Amino acid sequence: MAQYSSTFAPPERILMGPGPSTVPARVLQAMSAPTLGHLDPAYLAIMDETRRLMRQVMATENELTMAISGTGSAGMEACVCNLVEPGDEMLVGVNGVFGGRMRDVAERYGAQVHAIEAPWGKSIDPAEVRRMLQQHPRTKIVGIVHAETSTGVWQPMDEIAAIVQEHGALLLVDCVTSLGGLPVATDEWKADAIYSGTQKCLSCPPGLAPVTFSARAAEVIRNRKTKVTSWYLDASMLMNYWGSDRVYHHTAPINMTYALREALLMVVEEGLEQRYARHMLNHRALRAGLESMHLNYLPDRSLPTLNAVAVPEGVDDAKVRGRLLNEFGIEIGAGLGPFKGKAWRIGLMGHGSTQRNVILILSALGSLLRDQGIEVSVDEALAAANQIFRAGESNS
Amino acid sequence: MAQYSSTFAPPERILMGPGPSTVPARVLQAMSAPTLGHLDPAYLAIMDETRRLMRQVMATENELTMAISGTGSAGMEACVCNLVEPGDEMLVGVNGVFGGRMRDVAERYGAQVHAIEAPWGKSIDPAEVRRMLQQHPRTKIVGIVHAETSTGVWQPMDEIAAIVQEHGALLLVDCVTSLGGLPVATDEWKADAIYSGTQKCLSCPPGLAPVTFSARAAEVIRNRKTKVTSWYLDASMLMNYWGSDRVYHHTAPINMTYALREALLMVVEEGLEQRYARHMLNHRALRAGLESMHLNYLPDRSLPTLNAVAVPEGVDDAKVRGRLLNEFGIEIGAGLGPFKGKAWRIGLMGHGSTQRNVILILSALGSLLRDQGIEVSVDEALAAANQIFRAGESNS
Repeated sequence: MAQYSSTFAPPERILMGPGPSTVPARVLQAMSAPTLGHLDPAYLAIMDETRRLMRQVMATENELTMAISGTGSAGMEACVCNLVEPGDEMLVGVNGVFGGRMRDVAERYGAQVHAIEAPWGKSIDPAEVRRMLQQHPRTKIVGIVHAETSTGVWQPMDEIAAIVQEHGALLLVDCVTSLGGLPVATDEWKADAIYSGTQKCLSCPPGLAPVTFSARAAEVIRNRKTKVTSWYLDASMLMNYWGSDRVYHHTAPINMTYALREALLMVVEEGLEQRYARHMLNHRALRAGLESMHLNYLPDRSLPTLNAVAVPEGVDDAKVRGRLLNEFGIEIGAGLGPFKGKAWRIGLMGHGSTQRNVILILSALGSLLRDQGIEVSVDEALAAANQIFRAGESNS
Repeated sequence: MAQYSSTFAPPERILMGPGPSTVPARVLQAMSAPTLGHLDPAYLAIMDETRRLMRQVMATENELTMAISGTGSAGMEACVCNLVEPGDEMLVGVNGVFGGRMRDVAERYGAQVHAIEAPWGKSIDPAEVRRMLQQHPRTKIVGIVHAETSTGVWQPMDEIAAIVQEHGALLLVDCVTSLGGLPVATDEWKADAIYSGTQKCLSCPPGLAPVTFSARAAEVIRNRKTKVTSWYLDASMLMNYWGSDRVYHHTAPINMTYALREALLMVVEEGLEQRYARHMLNHRALRAGLESMHLNYLPDRSLPTLNAVAVPEGVDDAKVRGRLLNEFGIEIGAGLGPFKGKAWRIGLMGHGSTQRNVILILSALGSLLRDQGIEVSVDEALAAANQIFRAGESNS
């Protein structure tokens, strides 16, 4: 056994990347409660509570609301594979990794996908959605990533949702990096399918994917002409377990459900509006501080939960991130795809969106930039951030 | 918040059903360690340890060994969907729910499935495997459930594996209820794909599925003519994350990996042979006790990990299980399919396979049967069990 350490003690990080975010002790404690059987009445009651809490946080009355037994990407696949039948036309907004992933998944399940494209860092133009719907009048589904984790772009969902609704197509929204951090207005958008992950703004470990389907989507699923290829993600069977029939499908990840329930409860206890305001205030303070250090935002519309900034010319990206991790125990995210080596992605998600983390990352990053010969002032960065905090306090 | 209890305290059950099994405190503690990022070097080291431990417990040198981010059924789907291409011929042993599930999954992914059938409670006859392979010479894959959880049948894998190897087909084995409880001889069987779940004889919460593919299976996957329909379970992408490239695919269930690593470590610390012997001894003692109470085993070849017995004539199945749960906090499993209302499934898996649990279930079940007017003697049942324990001790 010599090769394994006798006590299991992974390092304690401050997770300020694109997710997972730091998990509160209360959620970790709930997760480690004794495991129940998946058909135990006590567990079924916990599932019901979790469902009710998911509906609250997703702002929906949808009956068909549940947690998929996989991570956010399994949620994406569950939404796509249940709605798509071979030959269906689908529009997907592609301006980052996750829009591209949705296109790939939809094509694997036989959809004919037309991409609504925008450059990396730019949001999808609602006018372009309208134009594409006119060009492809047989479009069955429009898929949009609300919060594009690879670029930090906040898609203008209100406008896009209204256009999709006018046209009558089904609306599928990726809310992985938004749920619990900025408004996800499922019913207001008249969205037909929403999926998320647990490890972003809900601050729960990764492993489950909250999803919800509108009554209209449930009808589409019931009337499918073909079986869903994925057995594991087949909603018509999953709903028999999550619904009142309780028909065994697969063994649910019991302890992950404990964690999700606790994390959702913390969201509801804080209050959705207060939580969104907190995320926005901390984001604005961080932004003021980063910009005072000439760290420029890449997105045209930045998410409050994820801050993507350009790595300054002449700075060694990997070295800075490595020192942040090894010297300060802070994780931030690297760039992906066209942003590889060119972007830092700094998350302020859920439990991690705090005034303390804002001043911590400004100080740590500022001092490392100075070490790299970049002339920045941490004093000025903190002053810029604190000005936002003070204004925020006097507003509330 | 009135509708949610202020402290989260699910009841503490003794899980003696078909899984999940009771999870040791040590595993729950490991699971609740602080969450790391999925690309953190510290987490990657934990993944590597987990992989090495999976290989040890699965008795294989297979490079392509990993944990699928879902429960055992996701493991089944991962093995099937990566090996099957539309039009492929596959034989599946069907003598219970899980063989039937494998057929369903394979058909969804386009396989032409021929079932090797046996009645519920009977094991698959190796001669029948040979006959079917002769009848269907173009068979690409043979899928067998090693431990059929719905009936408690232990399939004769050694014989079947030899026949499949003679023929040259790929061998896919469901080891959900066997891994960690009875020998899973991946390399000896020359099995090409094995999957399991965490919540049975590994005594870890549900949420991950250990899988392993032979070099030959990896070659088949590399040479596919079609993309795997499931993006989430596509092994060619997953291996880039689990392998040395560390290409991000999806966010792994970090804390579940902690739990699996700890659970596997406990298996290796105990020693595989000792662990199998413990499972066998406790099973034999339970069997002696149950049979002395005229509770007859349904399978022709019973698993040591799961004991399926007939509910005696005149006994109210649901009432007995309900009283076991509510009065004694003990969960046992009900019958499924043709065994609905007619079978009890009593698990002795992993951490739950103990002498204490054997005498506990004999006493509890015996007293409830007496309450139902069945003439049984708990004294005799315990004496029968203790005789086996004493013989086992003197053997060791």
